[in-house]
Amino acid sequence: MERDFLIREIGPDEFERVWPIFREVLARGESYNYPAELSMTRARAMWTTSPYRTFIAEVDAGEAVGCYKLGPNQPGRGDHVANASYMVAEAAWGKGVGGALCEHSLVQARKAGFVAMQFNYVVSSNTAAVHLWLKHGFDIVGRVPGAFRHASLGLVDVYVMHRML
Amino acid sequence: MERDFLIREIGPDEFERVWPIFREVLARGESYNYPAELSMTRARAMWTTSPYRTFIAEVDAGEAVGCYKLGPNQPGRGDHVANASYMVAEAAWGKGVGGALCEHSLVQARKAGFVAMQFNYVVSSNTAAVHLWLKHGFDIVGRVPGAFRHASLGLVDVYVMHRML
Repeated sequence: MERDFLIREIGPDEFERVWPIFREVLARGESYNYPAELSMTRARAMWTTSPYRTFIAEVDAGEAVGCYKLGPNQPGRGDHVANASYMVAEAAWGKGVGGALCEHSLVQARKAGFVAMQFNYVVSSNTAAVHLWLKHGFDIVGRVPGAFRHASLGLVDVYVMHRML
Repeated sequence: MERDFLIREIGPDEFERVWPIFREVLARGESYNYPAELSMTRARAMWTTSPYRTFIAEVDAGEAVGCYKLGPNQPGRGDHVANASYMVAEAAWGKGVGGALCEHSLVQARKAGFVAMQFNYVVSSNTAAVHLWLKHGFDIVGRVPGAFRHASLGLVDVYVMHRML
């Protein structure tokens, strides 16, 4: 597994560095439920407004190869459970970026005092992601039939995944 | 089952009529993940800003006995699945208000073009609600361990529930 990248937290002022990865992910239409017309302004607000925090994975030259968002999965009486969303640039697939982002997010979530991590919307046809989360200690705790309109496969099931921290 | 109440859609201008029910629900701390300090302004925005719609159940005298919010459960590629949140005033418990709100919401969701309805956060100890949703055609499709901090029971599991429309 190559590890020629570093992961660090960024603020709204650097969000534009990860925006190209968003555009790739949205154009594929295979994993995220964000509206197709999502603007950078809106994405930045969703990912960097407290209590949500954004982290970037970047290579030495400063190129962004991945990013993730960390925050509470629910407000109020559910805010002891974290949620995270990950994106990896297509050019960096297969280099361990996703796994490294996941491990980094688990450490950050523990540091922030969360006791568990939950993913609400893992598209079942995204088998690379499903296997990655299973490998990193997550269980499938729910399966919602046909909840995602996949760009080429039509309606596919969505998993709820969870692990204690 | 008594049915001496009517259900109709309201706009932000009438939201204050259902606000006392919110305060009851939040004070109990047994079912919703809303922050304890939720303001009426914020609640009104969450419940009445498009694409979310609010419906009220009221008795002849105009007293609010319940309310629900209807909208897409996810944006973008998940917006064919509806979500609804229900509240019943304590004074009106046991009069069929919850079931009537649920049936009303299923009709409205079909009319709006949704193909399914999903609840993300049914607190497992709220057995009256769980049984009501099962009775109205929902299945438990997921169970998240300890995801809700119940005011008196501590950490309790949360169900994901779902039905086709």
